[in-house]
Amino acid sequence: MYSLDPVFDTLRTAQARLALESRHTKDKALQAVMNALDSNRGPLCKANEADILKARKAGMKEVLIDRLSLDHTRIDGILEGIATVIHQDDPIGKVRKGWTLPNGLLVEQRTVALGVAAIIYESRPNVTVDAFSLAYKAGCAILLRGSSSALESNRALVGIIKQGLEAGGGIVEAVALAQSGSRDEVEEILNARGKIDVVIPRGGKELIRRVVDHARIPVIETGEGNCHIYVEPSADIPNAVAIIENAKIQKPGACNAVETLVVHRDAGTALLPLLAQRFAGKVELRCDGPSRRAIGTPPPGLVLKDAVMEDWETEFLDYILAVKTVDTLEEAIDFINRYGTKHSEAILTKDLKAAEAFSRRVDAACVYTNASTRFTDGGVFGFGAELGISTQKFHARGPMGLEALTTIQYRIAGSGQIRV
Amino acid sequence: MYSLDPVFDTLRTAQARLALESRHTKDKALQAVMNALDSNRGPLCKANEADILKARKAGMKEVLIDRLSLDHTRIDGILEGIATVIHQDDPIGKVRKGWTLPNGLLVEQRTVALGVAAIIYESRPNVTVDAFSLAYKAGCAILLRGSSSALESNRALVGIIKQGLEAGGGIVEAVALAQSGSRDEVEEILNARGKIDVVIPRGGKELIRRVVDHARIPVIETGEGNCHIYVEPSADIPNAVAIIENAKIQKPGACNAVETLVVHRDAGTALLPLLAQRFAGKVELRCDGPSRRAIGTPPPGLVLKDAVMEDWETEFLDYILAVKTVDTLEEAIDFINRYGTKHSEAILTKDLKAAEAFSRRVDAACVYTNASTRFTDGGVFGFGAELGISTQKFHARGPMGLEALTTIQYRIAGSGQIRV
Repeated sequence: MYSLDPVFDTLRTAQARLALESRHTKDKALQAVMNALDSNRGPLCKANEADILKARKAGMKEVLIDRLSLDHTRIDGILEGIATVIHQDDPIGKVRKGWTLPNGLLVEQRTVALGVAAIIYESRPNVTVDAFSLAYKAGCAILLRGSSSALESNRALVGIIKQGLEAGGGIVEAVALAQSGSRDEVEEILNARGKIDVVIPRGGKELIRRVVDHARIPVIETGEGNCHIYVEPSADIPNAVAIIENAKIQKPGACNAVETLVVHRDAGTALLPLLAQRFAGKVELRCDGPSRRAIGTPPPGLVLKDAVMEDWETEFLDYILAVKTVDTLEEAIDFINRYGTKHSEAILTKDLKAAEAFSRRVDAACVYTNASTRFTDGGVFGFGAELGISTQKFHARGPMGLEALTTIQYRIAGSGQIRV
Repeated sequence: MYSLDPVFDTLRTAQARLALESRHTKDKALQAVMNALDSNRGPLCKANEADILKARKAGMKEVLIDRLSLDHTRIDGILEGIATVIHQDDPIGKVRKGWTLPNGLLVEQRTVALGVAAIIYESRPNVTVDAFSLAYKAGCAILLRGSSSALESNRALVGIIKQGLEAGGGIVEAVALAQSGSRDEVEEILNARGKIDVVIPRGGKELIRRVVDHARIPVIETGEGNCHIYVEPSADIPNAVAIIENAKIQKPGACNAVETLVVHRDAGTALLPLLAQRFAGKVELRCDGPSRRAIGTPPPGLVLKDAVMEDWETEFLDYILAVKTVDTLEEAIDFINRYGTKHSEAILTKDLKAAEAFSRRVDAACVYTNASTRFTDGGVFGFGAELGISTQKFHARGPMGLEALTTIQYRIAGSGQIRV
């Protein structure tokens, strides 16, 4: 019977070696991986074309085919991601705290690698390289379980990564691709207690739900983003329209796109008619009563519906925006804490007190003042790449870079102390 | 039907308020709780006597009755724990990192409270107060689920805590006792997704296993300690004997007691006969062949057995020590990483290189050089109290104080930025 056990063992052994590598040797190996990817663009694109051909034959939607595709621009982006990871400081071996006990013991809290990580993801091949480069720099071995639709691309990528590691004196066995494509393989990963230290699902809601429900190893939940923008009465209205438009349509399928606009009634009368004009023919609005009244006569081409309860709970990932009017800041905060997924929330205001209250009381990974929610992204935050965006509070929160793959160890240095 | 849902709701609401409290108001409330406990020693001891009477009737073992007991000395210890928590810095609202993006957005990583915690624990009533005081200081509401054998003591403790909070202007609803005593109650806690942010099991192996296996919310595993001491050839032998004795018998039932001695063959001939003499009549030794040969003729009164495979895997929590002889430092490290539970591991040596290699390569929460493993303890580390000792790498590791109950939030301050 097919089993991942030998793969787990190899990763564990490789990780123990990788944990001892210096920043210099890790960066050298990553640089060699960059070079290998750069000089193998041809074979890479060819493997990717095979996946795309197969996907088209199977009737995959064009938007998903786009996600699956690699071209020179995307390869450039992948290489840039590795370069940024290389330039980041080594997260391992930092003394975060240190103190001396009354008996003379010196206690130090040091950062160490988390161990062996697994990532289960959907079609985008760049995740393969992003996850590998972060893991390698953080001293973690990684098991990659991509979608079967991207199998040829991922095989090519992992093959080239291993070539690069070989050439750069790195640890070739620190990365592995799970490639049977069977569901059993996922089950085996989710039950690998003591063999895999963390599993990160990255993709649609269904994938994440399945992993969270079945995992018997630590999971970091990612991605689901029912994000809000709250417009407070003092907000600059034209700027608010620009930010809402950006957060909604710059990339509607992204988890950090805004899904519900929350507007104070004193801002609604100025804001909503302008927004309705801007969104006519572009974005459907689903409004509660007061918001609808504030819009007045809808401009031609605007699709305008009454909001139902379900709309407050939905991550549309589409050209749809729910609109809720509130009477107070309190009500806005309560509404967001009730329906939000703790991802990214924004307040638009000129009032410092309102900004502070919103930031302190909204329970989310990222809280914005006067900016689009679209910035929640490991690349934008300067991490080079990301393993995903954690929407949980445990271990890692928000865009996950190198830090998410570390843990701590206490080192205690004595001179013969015993406990009395 | 009995349900904890109203309790979860009350805790959630209280936590939202507690998260906004300043260090000053939190410390004031904790001080009032200290005073209330101090001036209610009488009722407290009376409630505890009721539990003990009931336990004796039910035939509980004396060692467990001892764990259940409260007396003035133990109450003093509890009060001291609160005082230490009060003196510690507020873990909430720290800016851990901050940087500016090229577009002018200011990104800050701040510490915030984890939310609502639950602790499921066995008989020791001090855990009730320790867990409460850490949680309160860290801005977390806490649900306490103690053993049914300590129900009267816990009711009294939580009643007095609430009195103290009331008197000190604190948030009375930030602590609750789950007291139906049914197993369903535990199941409900373990399934409280979105209602409880973390559950910490603290007690025996069976309790921890049950929680880990059934929880659908984040768990921090605690406690199981199959700890080792490795004696390297350069070690000071009389000091090694003293350290091993301390780690074994100062409190054999503690999770940080040593269970297996690993000894280099060049140290064994000097060490093991001395240790055999010291342990005769006190501690049973379970030796592999080379260790047994190093002991030679056993001194009178020594219980000496051949070690079997199971001994390497067992946390004895008793006056038993397994002894393994190795030929190299490598072999010692591999043996410890194989059988250890990632709790506390020690090397005794004068060789700096050996100490460094051991510390870097042994995968455990606490790694000691030349000291007893018995120091792994939140109180000893200076945390005032502990929620338990995490043996996992995820979120919290080692003795868990205030830091384990925090998470981070990114705050992003803009001036109208949109993503291009």
